[in-house]
Amino acid sequence: MADSATVNDTSSTTDAIRHHDPALRGFASDNYAGAHPEVLAALALANGGHQVAYGEDVYTAHLQEVMHRHFGPAAEAFPVFNGTGANVVALQAATERWGAVICASTAHINVDECGAPERVGGLKLLTIPTEHGKLTPALIDREAYGWDDEHRAQPQIVSITQTTELGTCYTPEEIREICDHAHERGMKVHLDGSRLANAAATLGLPLRAFTTDAGVDLLSLGGTKNGLVFGECVVVLNPDAVRAMKHLRKLSMQLASKMRFVSVQFEALLAGDLWLRSATHANAMAARLAEGVRSVDGVEILHPVQSNAVFARLPHDVSERLQKRYRFYFWDEAAGDVRWMCAFDTTEADVDAFVAALKEEMAKA
Amino acid sequence: MADSATVNDTSSTTDAIRHHDPALRGFASDNYAGAHPEVLAALALANGGHQVAYGEDVYTAHLQEVMHRHFGPAAEAFPVFNGTGANVVALQAATERWGAVICASTAHINVDECGAPERVGGLKLLTIPTEHGKLTPALIDREAYGWDDEHRAQPQIVSITQTTELGTCYTPEEIREICDHAHERGMKVHLDGSRLANAAATLGLPLRAFTTDAGVDLLSLGGTKNGLVFGECVVVLNPDAVRAMKHLRKLSMQLASKMRFVSVQFEALLAGDLWLRSATHANAMAARLAEGVRSVDGVEILHPVQSNAVFARLPHDVSERLQKRYRFYFWDEAAGDVRWMCAFDTTEADVDAFVAALKEEMAKA
Amino acid sequence: MADSATVNDTSSTTDAIRHHDPALRGFASDNYAGAHPEVLAALALANGGHQVAYGEDVYTAHLQEVMHRHFGPAAEAFPVFNGTGANVVALQAATERWGAVICASTAHINVDECGAPERVGGLKLLTIPTEHGKLTPALIDREAYGWDDEHRAQPQIVSITQTTELGTCYTPEEIREICDHAHERGMKVHLDGSRLANAAATLGLPLRAFTTDAGVDLLSLGGTKNGLVFGECVVVLNPDAVRAMKHLRKLSMQLASKMRFVSVQFEALLAGDLWLRSATHANAMAARLAEGVRSVDGVEILHPVQSNAVFARLPHDVSERLQKRYRFYFWDEAAGDVRWMCAFDTTEADVDAFVAALKEEMAKA
Amino acid sequence: MADSATVNDTSSTTDAIRHHDPALRGFASDNYAGAHPEVLAALALANGGHQVAYGEDVYTAHLQEVMHRHFGPAAEAFPVFNGTGANVVALQAATERWGAVICASTAHINVDECGAPERVGGLKLLTIPTEHGKLTPALIDREAYGWDDEHRAQPQIVSITQTTELGTCYTPEEIREICDHAHERGMKVHLDGSRLANAAATLGLPLRAFTTDAGVDLLSLGGTKNGLVFGECVVVLNPDAVRAMKHLRKLSMQLASKMRFVSVQFEALLAGDLWLRSATHANAMAARLAEGVRSVDGVEILHPVQSNAVFARLPHDVSERLQKRYRFYFWDEAAGDVRWMCAFDTTEADVDAFVAALKEEMAKA
Repeated sequence: MADSATVNDTSSTTDAIRHHDPALRGFASDNYAGAHPEVLAALALANGGHQVAYGEDVYTAHLQEVMHRHFGPAAEAFPVFNGTGANVVALQAATERWGAVICASTAHINVDECGAPERVGGLKLLTIPTEHGKLTPALIDREAYGWDDEHRAQPQIVSITQTTELGTCYTPEEIREICDHAHERGMKVHLDGSRLANAAATLGLPLRAFTTDAGVDLLSLGGTKNGLVFGECVVVLNPDAVRAMKHLRKLSMQLASKMRFVSVQFEALLAGDLWLRSATHANAMAARLAEGVRSVDGVEILHPVQSNAVFARLPHDVSERLQKRYRFYFWDEAAGDVRWMCAFDTTEADVDAFVAALKEEMAKA
Repeated sequence: MADSATVNDTSSTTDAIRHHDPALRGFASDNYAGAHPEVLAALALANGGHQVAYGEDVYTAHLQEVMHRHFGPAAEAFPVFNGTGANVVALQAATERWGAVICASTAHINVDECGAPERVGGLKLLTIPTEHGKLTPALIDREAYGWDDEHRAQPQIVSITQTTELGTCYTPEEIREICDHAHERGMKVHLDGSRLANAAATLGLPLRAFTTDAGVDLLSLGGTKNGLVFGECVVVLNPDAVRAMKHLRKLSMQLASKMRFVSVQFEALLAGDLWLRSATHANAMAARLAEGVRSVDGVEILHPVQSNAVFARLPHDVSERLQKRYRFYFWDEAAGDVRWMCAFDTTEADVDAFVAALKEEMAKA
Repeated sequence: MADSATVNDTSSTTDAIRHHDPALRGFASDNYAGAHPEVLAALALANGGHQVAYGEDVYTAHLQEVMHRHFGPAAEAFPVFNGTGANVVALQAATERWGAVICASTAHINVDECGAPERVGGLKLLTIPTEHGKLTPALIDREAYGWDDEHRAQPQIVSITQTTELGTCYTPEEIREICDHAHERGMKVHLDGSRLANAAATLGLPLRAFTTDAGVDLLSLGGTKNGLVFGECVVVLNPDAVRAMKHLRKLSMQLASKMRFVSVQFEALLAGDLWLRSATHANAMAARLAEGVRSVDGVEILHPVQSNAVFARLPHDVSERLQKRYRFYFWDEAAGDVRWMCAFDTTEADVDAFVAALKEEMAKA
Repeated sequence: MADSATVNDTSSTTDAIRHHDPALRGFASDNYAGAHPEVLAALALANGGHQVAYGEDVYTAHLQEVMHRHFGPAAEAFPVFNGTGANVVALQAATERWGAVICASTAHINVDECGAPERVGGLKLLTIPTEHGKLTPALIDREAYGWDDEHRAQPQIVSITQTTELGTCYTPEEIREICDHAHERGMKVHLDGSRLANAAATLGLPLRAFTTDAGVDLLSLGGTKNGLVFGECVVVLNPDAVRAMKHLRKLSMQLASKMRFVSVQFEALLAGDLWLRSATHANAMAARLAEGVRSVDGVEILHPVQSNAVFARLPHDVSERLQKRYRFYFWDEAAGDVRWMCAFDTTEADVDAFVAALKEEMAKA
C-alpha cells in the first residue's frame, strides 16, 4: 500500500517514457503542436489538495475575473473539453428544439464535427456558400426567412467563425453589421472563436472590440490551438441570449470533474499576454510562409492570409511528394488545394526549410 | 511579435497564480483530489514538437500495447474526455437506434448524467432496483424480454458498474454469470469502470480477471478518479461487439485533438503500478474510515465497504454540523444517508481527524 | 385520362374488396375494433372541394369551438396521428432540452412507445412503481427533487394516465392533488387521455371536471380507441404551459396535410354524445365481463374495474387454450396475468360467450 | 348505456355538419384536395368487426401482394401516416447513427420537414444545388467522399425525389445511373415518391421500371397527394438495405393502430388503376394550365412541366391580386416565383377560369 508521503512526492519518476522527437514540427495543423510550457507550469500550480469538482473551485472563480477584463463585466465563461463541444453547447443554449443555425457552408460545425450539431443538438444547419468563408447580411438573407412557417426549421442564430476556416478575418465593422442584421430579425449571433486570439493579433485590437462591443451574444473561445493541453470555453457575452448553460454542458458530456485544471490553463493564457504572444507569433510565421510561397512560381495562394493559415493551389504530384517530407492536408484534393498551418512553436527556420522543400519539389514538376 | 526563442523558453513564468491551499483535503469525492505528480510529469514528457492530432500520435499507439498487457491482445482503447462520455460512446457503439440498456436504478448513467444517454445516445434505460447496487441474472430478467415486440425498446446491452456507485464490488464469478446470462439472450455487457482500479485492489486480481476473462464486451475505464488531470478510455474487449467507435467518439464530442496528452497520462498510470498503488491506498483509507465510524455509536454503515467509499446513516443535524467542517454529500437526505469518499492522496491523519470530528458532532446530538 | 366527372362520381366501385368477417370480435384491444359508422359518415361530409392543408381548414377551426365546450375557452386542440405522437409532442412542448418526466412505471410512454419519448423527444423518464397504475403526491416526491443539480435531468412535468393502463380511474380530487403538488414544485401536469372518455363515463362527470378544473395543463385526447379511423389530439388547457406547439407537431412528424379529416372525426365524436355513448357502452361490457369472471373459480381479478379493461390472473395453460379461441395478451406472462378489453362494439352476447369459453377452459384445468 | 344495436346502426346521423363548399377548388396544393370517393368507399369496406392492430390485419397482408405486382416479389410495404414520417423512417432504416444523406438542396427533406430528419433521425443532410431539382452522378460527387474521415458524417445514402419538388421527372436511365454510381461507392438510394404516380403517368411506364428495375433500394410511396384520406408507405425494394423497419416505424411514431384503414386505402388506389387515372388526370390539367399560361405575355414558366405542377415567374403585384381570387404559394417571393398545382379533382373548367383570371390581372399590370 502506498502511503501518503509517497503519493505526494513530486520527485517520483513516471512509468511513461518519451516516445517522440520534440524537435520535429510541421505545417499540418495548429493542434499538432503541444502545450506551451507556461500552461504546463500552471497545471502544477493548481495541483495538490482538494478542490470542489465540476466548476465550484477557486480557479474557475478566478477565471471569471480574467474573462471580465477581456470581454466585459457581463461575460461568463463555461469551460468545456473541446471545440465541437463548445459550439454545440453554445448553439443549444441559444436556440429552441425547433431552431436552425445559419452558417457558412465552410463552417467547422458543418464540415468537421461529424454531424454533432444535428445528432447531439438536434440542430438544423442552414448553410450558405461564401467566397472566403465570411458571411454578410446579404448572404444571411438567403436563409433568414420563414419564422411563421411550421414546415421550416426556424433560423434562430447566425454562427460565424473568427478567424474563419479559410484563414480570413472579419473586421469589427463586418461583425457589427452581421450582429445588427441578425438582432433586427430576432436572431442571435454565435462566434466560433477557436482561433480568436489570431484575429486579435491580426486586427491589433482587444478581444472585446470585435466580440462584446460588436454585438456578439456568445462565443466558443479556443484554448487548445492557442497552446493549451486541452480546453475551450463557451463565453456568454449576453446573458439574456442563453438558458441553462450548466445543464446543457453536462448533458452534452462537456463537464470536467477536475475543472480547476481547465480553468487554470485559461488563466495562464489570458491573465497575461501569453494568448497574444503565441497568436502573434503564429500569424507572423504564416506571413513569412506566404511570402516564401509567393516567391515560388506555379503555386497560387487562395485566400487573404489574415491569421496562421496559408491556403495554396499547386500541382497534385508536387503536394504528394511534399507530403512525404511534411505531413499536411488537402483541402480540396480534386482542385489541388492544400492548407498549411503555423503554430505558436513554429520557428523561422521551420518556415524557411519548408519553403525550400516546396521549391525543390516544384522544380521536379 | 514573439520570437520562437521566447515561446519555447521553459523558464518563463506563468501568469496564473496559486489560489488554493494544497494541504486541505476532505471526503466529498475522489475527484476533488488533484492529479498524481507522476501524471503531471508524464504530460511534460509528451510535450514539445508536433504529433499527429486526433489519436494518430505515438503515445496513443503505445497505449494500445499497455492495454493489451492488462486486458488481452484483442483490447483496443479509445481515449475520451470524461466518464459520461465514455459510457455514452460505449453504449451507442454496442446498440442500435432501437436499443435499450438494462442497468441498476442506482447506475451513474441513470442518476448522474443529466439524461445524456437518452438525449445524446437516444438510449432507453430499463432500470432495476437492487440492494447494494449490484445486478444479478434474476434481476436482469425483470427487463430482459420483448425482443420481438416493436412497442418495446429492445434490451441489447446490460450495463454494470465496478466498483458500484454504492462502493460494493462484484466478484469475477458474479460478473461471469451476468455475462453468460446476457450473451445467451443476445445481449452484450458493458462495464462502467470509473473505479475499476479500486475493484482490482479489493479483489487482489489483475484487471482482466474480472473483465475480459469474465466475458465483458466493453468497458469505460476511469482515469480521473484514479489520479489523472482528466481522461477516461472506452476499452473494447470484444471487437465484434461494437461498430464505428471512432465516428461515434467524434460525433459524441469526445475526440481530443491533442490526444497524446490523454494517452500519456494513461501510460503513466498503467505502464507500472501507479494505478494499483493509488487505488490500494484509497481503499485502505476507506477501510480505516469505516473502522473509525463503526466505533461511533449512532452511526450506521449502509453497504459493505469494498472500495474507497463509505456510506453511512446518521442524524441529519449532525451531518449538517459536520458539513461545516468537511464538505461531503447527502446520498438520500430524507433518510439521513451520506457518502464519504477517500482518494489517492487521503492520509491516515486526514481520516483520524475526520473520525474525531464526527465523534465530536455526534456527542452534541 | 380520367375526366372530372368520373373522379367525382361517388357511385364508382373500389378495386379493394372485403377480406374479413365483420361479425368477429374479441377482447384483445379496443383498437382491434374498427371505426364507428357515424365517424365514417363524417369523413364523407368533409370530403370534396379544396380546403387549406395542414390545419387551416374550416373543420379544424370548428373543432376548436367543440373543444371549448368540453374543456373551457382557453383550450386549444392540435390534431395528430396517434397516441405516441400526442404524448411526445405534448411532453416536448412543456419541457426544455434538459427536462425529465415523472410517470408511473406502468405508463404507456414508458413501456409501449419503443423509447420514442427518449429518442424523439430527448426526454428522460423518471419512473415510479405504483399499486394500480396511479401516482400520488407522495409517490411523485420520490423523483421530484434536484432542480439545482446539473447532474440530474430536471423534473419538469408529471404525466398521469386517465384511465390508467391498468384500467383504474383517478377521481377529480386525486388529480387536483397531483396538480397542486406538481405546480407548487414548478412542474406541469400532462394527462395521457387515450381513454379519457371511459373515465368520464365511469365518473359520471364532464371532461373538464377532472382535467381543466383539476389543474391539468395539457392532455393527449384519445380518438382511435373511442371509435375513430385514426386520430388523437393534444389539447392544451393552460396556454402558458407550452411553446411552439405547431413547430413541434411538424418536426415530430405528426402534422396531417388533409387535417380536415382528423378534425371532422373529432367533431363527429364530440359535438354530440357519441364519445360518451361509446365509452359508456364499453365500460358496461367490461363490468359485465368482470361480473362473469368473478363467477369463475380460480380466476382472480387484479385491479379495480373502472373502465373498459379487466385484468385477471389464471393458470397459464388455461390462458393458452383460451387464446386459441380468442386473441388476447398476457400482461405479465410469468405471473399468469392477462388483459381483456372491451370496445364500443362489444356486445352482451360477445361477453357471455367469452365467459362461457373461460369456464370451459378452466374446467379442463 | 348504448346497446350494441345502436352503435352498429349505420343509419344513425353524425353530429358533424358540412362546413365547406365542395364545389370550390384552387391551385395551391394537391393536398388541398379531399379523398377520392373510391377511397372513402374502401374505408367502409374494411370497417366492422375486429382486426389485429398494428399491421397484423388481413388488409395489410393483402397490400403486400398488391405491392408485389407493382414493385416485384421482394418488395415489402410499411404503411405510415405521412410523407415526412415515411422519409425519416426510411432514411433511418438504411443508415447508421453516424450516417449522412446526400440530397438536392430543394429536397422536401431539406426544406419542408422542420428539421425532422436531423432532430428525429439524427441525420446530417449534405445538400447540393441543382438546376431543376434533379441530382446527377457528377453532382452527387460533390459530397460523396470522406468515408474514412471521422470528422465527417458518412454519406451512406442518396435521396432523390420523383417527380421532383420542382415538377420535373427523372428518366429511368437517369435513376439507374444514380443508383449505379451510389452503389459503387457503398451508398444506398432512397426515392421520395410522394408523387410517384405522376411520374409513371408522365413516363408511361409501370412503377417498377424506374424504381426496382433502376436499382432504387427503398422509397416513400405517396398516397395522400394521390387521393387518400391520409397514408403513405415506406416500400422496401432491397431487403438487404434496411434493418428493423418495424421498430423504427414505431419509435418514429408512425405506427397506426388500426392499420387496416391505411392499407385498404392503398389497395383501393393500387389494386386497379385509380392511382394512374388520378395522376394522369392531374398531369393533364397541369399541361393544360401550362399551355394557358404560355399564352399570357409576361409570365415565364420556370421548369419543364413534367407532372402536376407549374412553376412560373410573374410580377409580384399580379400574384398578390391573383391570390385574392385563388390561394397559392410563392416559391421564391423575392424573385416573383410561384407554384401552381393540379389535383385529381381539378377540372378543365377550373384551369380555364384560372388562366382567364391570370390574364385579367396581368392586363392590370
